[in-house]
Amino acid sequence: MASSRELAQDERYLRLACRLARKAAGRTSPNPMVGAVIVRGGKIVGRGYHHFAGGPHAEINALKQAGAKAKGATLYITLEPCSHHGRTPPCARALIAAGIHHVVAGMKDPNPLVAGRGFQQLRRAGIEVRSGVCQSECAELIEAFGKFISQKTPFVTLKLAATLDGKIATASGDSRWISGEKSRALVHQWRNRMDAVLVGIGTVRADDPQLTCRIPKGRNPYRVVLDSQLKISPSAQLLRLPDPAKTIIATTEGAPAQKIRALEKLGVVVWRLPARDGQVAWPALLRKLAGIGVVSVLIEGGAAVAASALKHKIVDKLELFYAPKIVGGDGAAMIASLGIGKMAHALALKRVKLGRSGDDILISAYL
Amino acid sequence: MASSRELAQDERYLRLACRLARKAAGRTSPNPMVGAVIVRGGKIVGRGYHHFAGGPHAEINALKQAGAKAKGATLYITLEPCSHHGRTPPCARALIAAGIHHVVAGMKDPNPLVAGRGFQQLRRAGIEVRSGVCQSECAELIEAFGKFISQKTPFVTLKLAATLDGKIATASGDSRWISGEKSRALVHQWRNRMDAVLVGIGTVRADDPQLTCRIPKGRNPYRVVLDSQLKISPSAQLLRLPDPAKTIIATTEGAPAQKIRALEKLGVVVWRLPARDGQVAWPALLRKLAGIGVVSVLIEGGAAVAASALKHKIVDKLELFYAPKIVGGDGAAMIASLGIGKMAHALALKRVKLGRSGDDILISAYL
Repeated sequence: MASSRELAQDERYLRLACRLARKAAGRTSPNPMVGAVIVRGGKIVGRGYHHFAGGPHAEINALKQAGAKAKGATLYITLEPCSHHGRTPPCARALIAAGIHHVVAGMKDPNPLVAGRGFQQLRRAGIEVRSGVCQSECAELIEAFGKFISQKTPFVTLKLAATLDGKIATASGDSRWISGEKSRALVHQWRNRMDAVLVGIGTVRADDPQLTCRIPKGRNPYRVVLDSQLKISPSAQLLRLPDPAKTIIATTEGAPAQKIRALEKLGVVVWRLPARDGQVAWPALLRKLAGIGVVSVLIEGGAAVAASALKHKIVDKLELFYAPKIVGGDGAAMIASLGIGKMAHALALKRVKLGRSGDDILISAYL
Repeated sequence: MASSRELAQDERYLRLACRLARKAAGRTSPNPMVGAVIVRGGKIVGRGYHHFAGGPHAEINALKQAGAKAKGATLYITLEPCSHHGRTPPCARALIAAGIHHVVAGMKDPNPLVAGRGFQQLRRAGIEVRSGVCQSECAELIEAFGKFISQKTPFVTLKLAATLDGKIATASGDSRWISGEKSRALVHQWRNRMDAVLVGIGTVRADDPQLTCRIPKGRNPYRVVLDSQLKISPSAQLLRLPDPAKTIIATTEGAPAQKIRALEKLGVVVWRLPARDGQVAWPALLRKLAGIGVVSVLIEGGAAVAASALKHKIVDKLELFYAPKIVGGDGAAMIASLGIGKMAHALALKRVKLGRSGDDILISAYL
């Protein structure tokens, strides 16, 4: 049994591993973010994280840094080391070969190809393994990957910014600005981390957004437009960006072939997908996104897309910004009609977190 | 200059005085809540608070308990001692007579009859006075009184309970329950503290509420119904309570005299007030409430009354409960139309506080 002082130390190293992991946020898909710290004699001798899919795993980078000092050391790692040959050889073997004595892990790998086999290999080699330290923090790190790997569909976050009475625009349609500068900056951080952002054609027509990530060293996510009728204007900014192949127009099979060709000439991608009630079917779209390695999707509105996503139960997490404002009942609702007849049947949110973002309130919750 | 240790001690005693003051919440109107602690040689020798209007003030109760030990002692008090003859003689004189050496106060009395004169009398008698300790806590204690005494109108709190998308009912009108048990219990605490609660006739017709305070040792506030056309049903529960005189129906001058007489026969109070745009004029109603000693009013809905109160700028504070639920755009808005055309003209909330009430979120803010 570890003493409470040892436990506190374990948690400190694991939190450091989490911080290392997050350095690659948005860069590892379809792999998870993972961080690792190697400690010998109370001293950190190696740090590492998984930088990008296809590159070395976190523990391999940490082993490289530790060199011979890995012998007899403890590895702190956010996620179970892998046991299978993927694009790189199994990490469990490398740890055994390096002479690691103890492994303290955040959690088991939800990947069915691993799922405990990594720990098993280590234990068989005489390595003492403890898992479940800082588990909630480690689990949050891979919440998107966890869904992706087990359900073969991306983790979907729905972001909305509204007044405290739930409105995203006045009666006349004016919506600039609801949320504050800090909240808008935070969304650019998210775009940097998410594999794809998604909006409805209504938002494109109303705001003509670029949906790019405008932070230093940021990278643009895929930009997905739900456009069942292919109504996008040829002059939309989304069609005129320097990386047109990252713009995906998701339309239905009835879309005019000529317009599709014109869009494709601009370098953007058009997906003709099955329709359901005249709209692009969510499951088909999400499967197709998973197919190109999209693990996480951020839905950025508007109200109709938000309602459709909620109604079809494809949303995993909500990020709701509330500006400290009231605009009144003639304003535009943040989420369109869901056809819920009884209050008892309202969508129930779980694990609600409260926070602030400048003057705004930020409420995060899961569905 | 007081040392930082002395300052920390001062704050501790003043916070105790605040706690004492709050014991009489809802019992002191039209007077403010005030608490006092007398300390000599590092020991508390007297505690007191103002129990009810007409009764002795906080410092007098504390002096009574301290007896001869008040000589040379320090008085900690949430609000400046009074200097004028009201229903009781001036407290400043009593403190001088008792031989108090130091006075540490939360804040100056906003009552124009005092407003610094109490401190002046004490200083003239050689008592050292320090004010502004724990000022924000002490100010919150008398926020309703502060407005009442300076503007001759009650402090108005608007309470609403909605889903996170700002709805108070489904499309079919179902609203049971939005907020959780703990939030509903908190509202009973508020009814115990507020001098009056107010609802619109729509809420009476839809919910037939009692608006009573259902907690042990609670007392009922005045129950005000905004009913411009005098549409209240003779069988409404509000007309059949054991204390009918605490029900006030606020109507306009056009209300039928016969119905007024019928209501008055039930023991309830009917006020015929000037109308503005066919509705009871807020300023007239609030003046009349101030006239019967109502310092604080809690508006409990519905959406139309909330909008009217906000539009007429009579709301001081908002208490917004949000249940962790989403009901969708076809639900009923928590606040009716305000006719705001530009987002930049939305009502801006200040001093926003975030909290939890069971599973609900409670957001408090000022206008």
